[in-house]
Formats: sequence, structure tokens, C-alpha cells
Amino acid sequence: MVEAGALTSGRDIRAQCRAGAFSAQTSGLAPGFVQANIVILPSGVASHFQTFCQRNPRPCPLLAVSPSPGDPTLPDMGNDIDIRRDLPKYRVWRDGNSAELVTDVSALWQHDWIAFALGCSFSFEEALLEAGIEVRNITEGVNVPMYRTDIPCAAAGPFAGEMVVSMRPMTAADAILAIQICARFPSVHGAPVHLGDPAQIGIKDLSNPDFGAAVSVKSTELPVFWACGVTPQNALRSAKLPLAITHEPGHMLVTDLKNSDLAIF
Amino acid sequence: MVEAGALTSGRDIRAQCRAGAFSAQTSGLAPGFVQANIVILPSGVASHFQTFCQRNPRPCPLLAVSPSPGDPTLPDMGNDIDIRRDLPKYRVWRDGNSAELVTDVSALWQHDWIAFALGCSFSFEEALLEAGIEVRNITEGVNVPMYRTDIPCAAAGPFAGEMVVSMRPMTAADAILAIQICARFPSVHGAPVHLGDPAQIGIKDLSNPDFGAAVSVKSTELPVFWACGVTPQNALRSAKLPLAITHEPGHMLVTDLKNSDLAIF
Repeated sequence: MVEAGALTSGRDIRAQCRAGAFSAQTSGLAPGFVQANIVILPSGVASHFQTFCQRNPRPCPLLAVSPSPGDPTLPDMGNDIDIRRDLPKYRVWRDGNSAELVTDVSALWQHDWIAFALGCSFSFEEALLEAGIEVRNITEGVNVPMYRTDIPCAAAGPFAGEMVVSMRPMTAADAILAIQICARFPSVHGAPVHLGDPAQIGIKDLSNPDFGAAVSVKSTELPVFWACGVTPQNALRSAKLPLAITHEPGHMLVTDLKNSDLAIF
Repeated sequence: MVEAGALTSGRDIRAQCRAGAFSAQTSGLAPGFVQANIVILPSGVASHFQTFCQRNPRPCPLLAVSPSPGDPTLPDMGNDIDIRRDLPKYRVWRDGNSAELVTDVSALWQHDWIAFALGCSFSFEEALLEAGIEVRNITEGVNVPMYRTDIPCAAAGPFAGEMVVSMRPMTAADAILAIQICARFPSVHGAPVHLGDPAQIGIKDLSNPDFGAAVSVKSTELPVFWACGVTPQNALRSAKLPLAITHEPGHMLVTDLKNSDLAIF
């Protein structure tokens, strides 16, 4: 294992992952660098998945795609990326079910596989913190709470399902500011999709998230909900592919891009 | 009286006001043209009021000031404006109290008076409607409900008091979109200052506004609150000037500026 203090750039972290020296969560590491959700699929369904992203840009903001089938680089995200070995942890999906967690997918890699990099909320959390807004999951040191909703995604081929959202509680004033900040970052989920009453989007119990950990919500706060990059994993369950790979939630590809490069104005 | 259909520009409406032919509310007239709140004060306190606006830009977004004391034109707002005669209705304030309503203040005009034009929510309501967001006060054909709050304004000289807000009920999704739209228009109050629980900003009863008329709020909606151009009238009560003039709420100066010119991005 390496000391987290040494993990100050995407290049650092990818090198440690590739060497088998780092397999932990990437939240808070390499400040300023874009981290990405990863989905790896056979080329036969890849165009459907790309259309799924195109049709659902809030939960699935597509940052980059493999240059060609089987090519493990991702040059739009950084130099010398090997998508088979540069994530700290991967989740392997078999027949639509989460099967195993691994730190290297070289042995599973197929000649026709295509990798997709999707924007991640870590980028806008940094912008919120810089604006003086508390991000509760960071304060409480837990993975952000995520919930299945009843908001349908637009389907594409075998990919379908409901949107997954992440939740951060805020005062109304901070929520109003956060909406303005996040609107500048459409490639990392953009503005929230909902705030206030969780039941309006099919969430029954805020204290019982479907992914991540619950955080405290004060009586003076509103829950604010963002489209979440775990949504594609929901779509993978629906697609029931014999084999597919994603990052393990929280264990992201750390890229050479800077978060500030993603701001549209 | 003239037919409203003829009142399609600032120039039209000001000409009708000046001729004594129009004294009604200006909501919905001259689509696309900026309408402004007006405050007219003696020069002795004008610099304090200008500082009050500077310190409270959300409720008091200053669009223009008289070129010199006693000059009744307002060239930054339009050609040939005579601020003494071009509003449909004025409210006269004596010793901090609302005294009378008149359609011409030429007889009251002083050699040292200075007029201030402040941005008005009509500009952003137009942008909301264009985005397909329902504006309830327009749907229900009433003046927007306005409320005194416990949000203190920053004081300047004799001008002080709490912020007045306007309220428009919306679904969460529309509120999130409205925040993004209004952020583009800082000179007409900008993004909302609050949403959700009215008690958090000192409002006891949404059905009983301090100014304007109540509107219906559906159970699936949140009240969304914007800083309001009636705030300066609150500050005038506090200042207790022997004589001052404002527009009568809803009876605005219609200018030659276009709302679209106010967007900052």
C-alpha cells in the first residue's frame, strides 16, 4: 500500500493501481483531477449503450469512449491509460448480476470490448466545497447515499431502468447556490433533478439508501438529489449481458483532466 | 383610455401615460421590454440610498440613476423619458407613510430630486414563461404575492429594514430550472433567495401576503421566494423622509431596454 498523501495526480494513482499497490476508494484523492465512472461492454451492445447515455445525459454524461474495440487506452482521459489495470477496483457483472470484485481485468479482457467513461459527482463536490457549501457525506466521511427512484430512463436496446440519484442535504440558500454551481458542470451530472419531498421521486426512506451510506439531515435542511453515475449499473442489471465490467462504486478512474476544464461558463 | 393591444413598446406606454390616457398596471404589456421600479428622493439622502442599493443588490438591483439632480430624464433607460409623467401611477410618501396615489408628479418635482430605476421581476417572469414554466400569478391574473421577511437588509444612512420577497409556487423540477434561468438575470433580482419552509424567513401565512394577492399552492409544489423591488418602500418607511415618490406597485416605468439585454450569459 502507498500513502494517500502521495496520490496527488491521476498519473500517480493509475501507476499505483497498475502496480497493484492501491485498491481503495478514490474520494478526496488527486484534488482537482476529474474522476470517472467506467462501463466496459462488448462491441455488440456498445452502440446501444452509447445511445442510452445520449438519451440520458443527466445520469450518464459521457466523457470518453475507447478509440476502437479492444483498445485498452482512453486517450481523451489521459496519457497511457490502461483501462484494464488502472482502476483501484472493478465489479464484474455476469448475466446481469454483480459477480465478483477484482483489481485487474486483463485476464477477462476481450478483443471487442469498449470502455465508456462517465462524469462523476466528485467533480462538482469539489466546486461546492470551494464555494463554502458543506457536503455532508464528506463531513461525515462516508460514501454519498444513493437511491433508486421511479424516474424512468429513456431505453436503448437492452438498456433500460430507473434513474439512481445521490442525495446531499442542504439549507435552501445552499441548495439555490449549489444549483447554480452545478449547472456549470453538465458533464458531471449538472444541476440537481429534484429537491424536497423524497416520495415524489419514489424514495420511501432517506435513512435507508440503496447504495452508499445514510447521512444526517437536519430539520432546517432539504434533501437535494442529483442524477447518479450508478444508474448504468441499474441498466446493466436490466440488460442481463453474459459478461460486463464496471468500476466498483467509489473506486474511480482518476484522469489527467482537471475539474475546472469541465465548467461551461 | 387606450386599448392594451396598442401598448407594445416602452415608448408607446410612456406616451400614453404622459398624455394621461393610461394609468393601469403594466404587467404583460410591451412584451420583451424591461420594466423598472422607481424611487425618487431628494439629493441629500440620494447617496445613502445608492449605497443601500449597492449593499443590497438582490432586492435593489440598480439599473439607472438620474444624470444630475433635478434632471427628469433617464437616458440609460430610454429616449425622452420624463420620469415625472411617464409612469402610469405614483405613490407619494410623506414622513415615511404612504400618502396618496397620483398619475403625474410634475407639481411635486423638486430642483434637487434624483430618480433611481431598479430591476423588476417582470423581466425574469418572461424568461420563465419562455422556458415553459408556469408563473402562477400570471395564470391566476393577479399581482404576485409579496411578503415581509425577517431577512435584514444592510443599512445605509436612514435606509434600513427587512427584505420583501415575492413568491411563485413551483414543482421542484421547475424550481431547479427557474433558479438556473434567473441566475442569468442578476439585474432583475437574480436567483431566488429561499425556497420551501416560509417560516425559515419569517413568513407566517402564505395565504395572507403583505402586498399583492395570494395565489394557490398545490401540495406537490414548493413556494419559491425572490428578493423583491418593494423592499425599498420598506426602507422608505424606515427613513421617514418628509417627501419621497415611488411607482405604485405593478405600475412600472416601461423602458426602451430589452429583457434579453439583461442576461449575463
